[in-house]
Amino acid sequence: MVPRRSFTIDTEKTTRTTYVLGTELTVNLNRCAPPQSKFFSIKCSPNVHYKITPQAKDGNAVPYPLTPNSVLIVTMDAVSKTANDSKLSVRYYGEKTEALGDALLHLTAVEISLDVDADRDSVVEKNNPNKGSWKWGPNGHGAILLVNCDSESTYKKTLDSEVDEISKVSDLQDMSKMILRTNGPAELPEGYKLTMHISQTTSENVRVFRPRTNVQKDNVLCSHKLLKLFLKDYIMVVGTDMLTQEVPYLGGKTELEFFVEGLHFPDKDFDGLITINLSLLEPCGKDFPETPVFTDKVVFHVSPWIMTPNTLKPVEVYVCSTNDNYSFLKSIKNLVEKCGSKLKICHEYMNRGDRWMQDELEFGYIDSPHHQFPVVLDSPRDGDLQDFPYESILGPDFGYVTRHALNEEVSSLDSFGNLEVSPPVTVNGKSYPLGRIIIGVAFPTATRGRNMTQVVQDFLWAQKVQEPIALYSDWLVVGHVDEFMTFVPAPDRKKFRLLLASPDAGYKVFKSLQNNGHGKAEMFPGLPEAISVNEILSDKKLQAENRYVQNCIDWNRDVLKKELGLDDEDIIDLPILFKVLEEKTHPRAVAYYPDMVNMIVLGDQLGIPKPFGPKVKGRCALEIEVCSLLEPLGLKCTFIDDLAPYHKLLGEVHCGSNVLREPSPFKWWNLEL
Amino acid sequence: MVPRRSFTIDTEKTTRTTYVLGTELTVNLNRCAPPQSKFFSIKCSPNVHYKITPQAKDGNAVPYPLTPNSVLIVTMDAVSKTANDSKLSVRYYGEKTEALGDALLHLTAVEISLDVDADRDSVVEKNNPNKGSWKWGPNGHGAILLVNCDSESTYKKTLDSEVDEISKVSDLQDMSKMILRTNGPAELPEGYKLTMHISQTTSENVRVFRPRTNVQKDNVLCSHKLLKLFLKDYIMVVGTDMLTQEVPYLGGKTELEFFVEGLHFPDKDFDGLITINLSLLEPCGKDFPETPVFTDKVVFHVSPWIMTPNTLKPVEVYVCSTNDNYSFLKSIKNLVEKCGSKLKICHEYMNRGDRWMQDELEFGYIDSPHHQFPVVLDSPRDGDLQDFPYESILGPDFGYVTRHALNEEVSSLDSFGNLEVSPPVTVNGKSYPLGRIIIGVAFPTATRGRNMTQVVQDFLWAQKVQEPIALYSDWLVVGHVDEFMTFVPAPDRKKFRLLLASPDAGYKVFKSLQNNGHGKAEMFPGLPEAISVNEILSDKKLQAENRYVQNCIDWNRDVLKKELGLDDEDIIDLPILFKVLEEKTHPRAVAYYPDMVNMIVLGDQLGIPKPFGPKVKGRCALEIEVCSLLEPLGLKCTFIDDLAPYHKLLGEVHCGSNVLREPSPFKWWNLEL
Repeated sequence: MVPRRSFTIDTEKTTRTTYVLGTELTVNLNRCAPPQSKFFSIKCSPNVHYKITPQAKDGNAVPYPLTPNSVLIVTMDAVSKTANDSKLSVRYYGEKTEALGDALLHLTAVEISLDVDADRDSVVEKNNPNKGSWKWGPNGHGAILLVNCDSESTYKKTLDSEVDEISKVSDLQDMSKMILRTNGPAELPEGYKLTMHISQTTSENVRVFRPRTNVQKDNVLCSHKLLKLFLKDYIMVVGTDMLTQEVPYLGGKTELEFFVEGLHFPDKDFDGLITINLSLLEPCGKDFPETPVFTDKVVFHVSPWIMTPNTLKPVEVYVCSTNDNYSFLKSIKNLVEKCGSKLKICHEYMNRGDRWMQDELEFGYIDSPHHQFPVVLDSPRDGDLQDFPYESILGPDFGYVTRHALNEEVSSLDSFGNLEVSPPVTVNGKSYPLGRIIIGVAFPTATRGRNMTQVVQDFLWAQKVQEPIALYSDWLVVGHVDEFMTFVPAPDRKKFRLLLASPDAGYKVFKSLQNNGHGKAEMFPGLPEAISVNEILSDKKLQAENRYVQNCIDWNRDVLKKELGLDDEDIIDLPILFKVLEEKTHPRAVAYYPDMVNMIVLGDQLGIPKPFGPKVKGRCALEIEVCSLLEPLGLKCTFIDDLAPYHKLLGEVHCGSNVLREPSPFKWWNLEL
Repeated sequence: MVPRRSFTIDTEKTTRTTYVLGTELTVNLNRCAPPQSKFFSIKCSPNVHYKITPQAKDGNAVPYPLTPNSVLIVTMDAVSKTANDSKLSVRYYGEKTEALGDALLHLTAVEISLDVDADRDSVVEKNNPNKGSWKWGPNGHGAILLVNCDSESTYKKTLDSEVDEISKVSDLQDMSKMILRTNGPAELPEGYKLTMHISQTTSENVRVFRPRTNVQKDNVLCSHKLLKLFLKDYIMVVGTDMLTQEVPYLGGKTELEFFVEGLHFPDKDFDGLITINLSLLEPCGKDFPETPVFTDKVVFHVSPWIMTPNTLKPVEVYVCSTNDNYSFLKSIKNLVEKCGSKLKICHEYMNRGDRWMQDELEFGYIDSPHHQFPVVLDSPRDGDLQDFPYESILGPDFGYVTRHALNEEVSSLDSFGNLEVSPPVTVNGKSYPLGRIIIGVAFPTATRGRNMTQVVQDFLWAQKVQEPIALYSDWLVVGHVDEFMTFVPAPDRKKFRLLLASPDAGYKVFKSLQNNGHGKAEMFPGLPEAISVNEILSDKKLQAENRYVQNCIDWNRDVLKKELGLDDEDIIDLPILFKVLEEKTHPRAVAYYPDMVNMIVLGDQLGIPKPFGPKVKGRCALEIEVCSLLEPLGLKCTFIDDLAPYHKLLGEVHCGSNVLREPSPFKWWNLEL
């Protein structure tokens, strides 16, 4: 709809106004008509056009009859060269067509467009008709903003979003461009101003900068030129505590470039949408405030934080070096070399003995048509690794975000071994091309239980593009979903398999061994805790515990089948037994032997906790079983000894590592939400 | 999709489980098969049915071949008479069809359905397939909940939603019914439980009650019977600090009635949706917690708070009695009698001289298929009338809601003369059958200005069904939208007209008077402030001020035309002049003579501030003009003298009154959102 503006003319003095191309001025002709006026006629400059409503019955009758609702609609088709260079006049006539008065209007036409990349091709096109709204999907529209959550410095760091100035010119690359295109006379008529403005709520979530000096005309002030400007040459236009500010009108045909940064991720109370307005203000005479006569607006959506499933290509593998994990580290190094990724070791001065790299942080990324970078989500867990994400990961083009628990107890379920993401799935026709986030919580029916903190849950749900699934993980002592499930790539079906820990599958292996005459073969062979297959199978208490564990996992299996649209053929049961520890309030489970599902997945290379199962002809029966399940999918199994430095501390390979992966090729804004 | 549950059977001992009608038990046959099993066969009771996947190639071959993915899908078609009265057994065979073992399963079938009025006909139907989700619109579904914001008592009042027990049995009428329908044996098998549960977030917004004793079977325990129960016979099942609780299984075919109350209105951080779950818990053996084996859920949407436009029938008119408004009160009383409404007078001991009844409160209502009642929104304004809404209006079936400003200054824009609602409109094809809320704020371009507090704005936007429009009212000293606009009913077009104050229309009247030789006629005739038409027209300062005021009103006119889809023909300009008061920071306007647009609208009766305009042949020219504009619409104009007790204190008839109206016949849940 064409923006319309009510305007009043006057027979007693000449009125002046500034007209913005593409709008309509509507003049109620009756309002200012001299008493006894019955007819009127119009004269105007050639670049001024008008319509009259209601249309006079005798369309060509001049003068026109004046009715109580006679409205003159004025448009112009070209910008003015000088102020007030176009004219329109209305002459009023009485009953006998005697002239009663003339209302003169002097017009200045300008073109004003606040522009963004609304079609998401990383070019700021001119006046996209959809720039003022957001629509998801491949046929959608709306510009995109990144939270400026990286730090241009690698030491003396601050999040760029926490400083209200531009710290380095490279910071501009993290921002979205916005261009004010104007065309018109060298100067606006006296008293007119351009002003950019945002709402109070928006001001908490965005900042807009512009170069302080910008006098080049008739061409774009391109980024590479801007980068040569000094930092002091950038000023904040709107943002925190600055809701509105005048912006210069440069005259002629000019483009003024702005840089826009997001300050916060979508969350419970922020839907991610940001509106920025630009208004032309008209003077109302001395002593009165100006009134806006034209407003253009643009809408941005802040990029959500996006997680990367195991099926995406690994880039860097993170592990801790501790005083007892030398051979483990070596195994990981070999594995990482095989798949061509980089290994990043967090040394002891930083980890202070906290080896649970999986639990302190989760890697994700943010994405826009012009730029993308990884962002680490720092867990509220805060073990001795707590400084690692901020101190060692945050940096130029590596963002950081965290959530702090408020009036909530942080539990083991807040570690990010309890935060995973599925590969892309389609569920009952609904597609999740970025997969679905998976977390573990207490059974909703439990009168008490541990949960992931509400602030982190709120954050995850608010990202919207990987709709989370809550599983039940509180049945485990440690309570992480990665203790009973993972995903591996596969060449067929849905391009992945869900691996689940399965006591039933475990017992099946042990029974087969017994049945085939290997009842005396020992679990943990050669180790102090060695125990025979027969002994394991005759332990009724262990059986009852594993029945309970299988119930818990089956409940999760049913949820995963439903929420990820999986068939039984998409799931592989890995033979893993658990045992239940007596806790004061609640019996909870840990893996009986190294929990093979807690593996690291690097392309087709799997680093699996070495289970130390009973040997038949010198080979571990559990390894053989797992290889027979996974190798047909083209996966390569490397069994890594994590017994002493991880398993005995209630974690495994996955808990002790983390993987930065390539972003998904799917663009989040193309989701149909 | 049929709920599926993974289940494991055992060849070493009989397993038992409880099956819920309408679900499927899926048994992985390979998991518990004895080693070397190659085939299996199934036997079962006549009410047990099964399917096998993958289907054996030779469909009728018995025994069936066992594959790694062989799954047995079990269903039942009738409830059990006694626990474990149905059986299924699986026999496993080796290569040469020798029997290797039998897995026995004993089944108890029950029917469980948590029911609500999901089709919105005020009857709680059985197991509506859509009960677990919410959809807006006439073809939508989902149950509805009222915020229990009235008070069953008229003295010693508390909001019912603030006490976690039922204060009077009449309180049950404000709640939505929910019924747990069960059918099965007299008792559940040992160790099984039913439990109702809600999330932490939901627990802040809902409470569920049930009668403590309820042993009637095979028929509904109807409300009228419940009402005879004593209050102590109701207990809270879930709600604040109570996320889950066991509910009784009554045995046989039974219905257990629950009563559900909402605690909060939709707001910035609450979308109004509430989910309540009911699970069947299965015992997992001594020492282990139960696991849910079946969960049913229902969804409610809390009724938004809905405002009533001037076009709805008035029920009660509220005004204050003060020591100086006797004749004003008498005029209002006459007017109210004409339109058949009731008059409610707030006496001086309560109003303490604060006469601005419009500003302290706004009437609205909440609505559900089973019940509706009015709800007063108490302004954060808090003048001397501040106790009136709670003390005098809140009561049985008259609800109360308020918002308190947090770290925000409360300004004159928080008075509810600055909160209005349009009649139903359709804008570019989008229909607003409940109209749109209208508030006044500062210009978005103003560097400083007064605004309505964010908490109230957030509340209004969150109701969703009357999407608000923000106008510019900060140009007025008092700053209320009712100083320059109102709506009146009309027989034609959109069934209403928007009335706008118009200095241009005012000057037109005065110029006509001058032109017709009445230049010496006096405004405020006979009063000390009397001033002639000629003097008014020659006041250049007044003209400039009114030019500014007209600009401000025109900006609002353009917004209203756009946001309400109005044509110029839907708008009537009332002849009103303003004057601008010198304020330190900002020039702001007040009406020059009684502001006729600030009228009370009671059906076709309009109570209009008497303007004291210049008289021609003994009749006020301004009254004549206004009557000539409004009477053709079938409206009856009564001019009420509010000069001393209201106008001189910067308010008029509308500011000094409030109208409780009938709710809209349109049901909010039928909106297409």
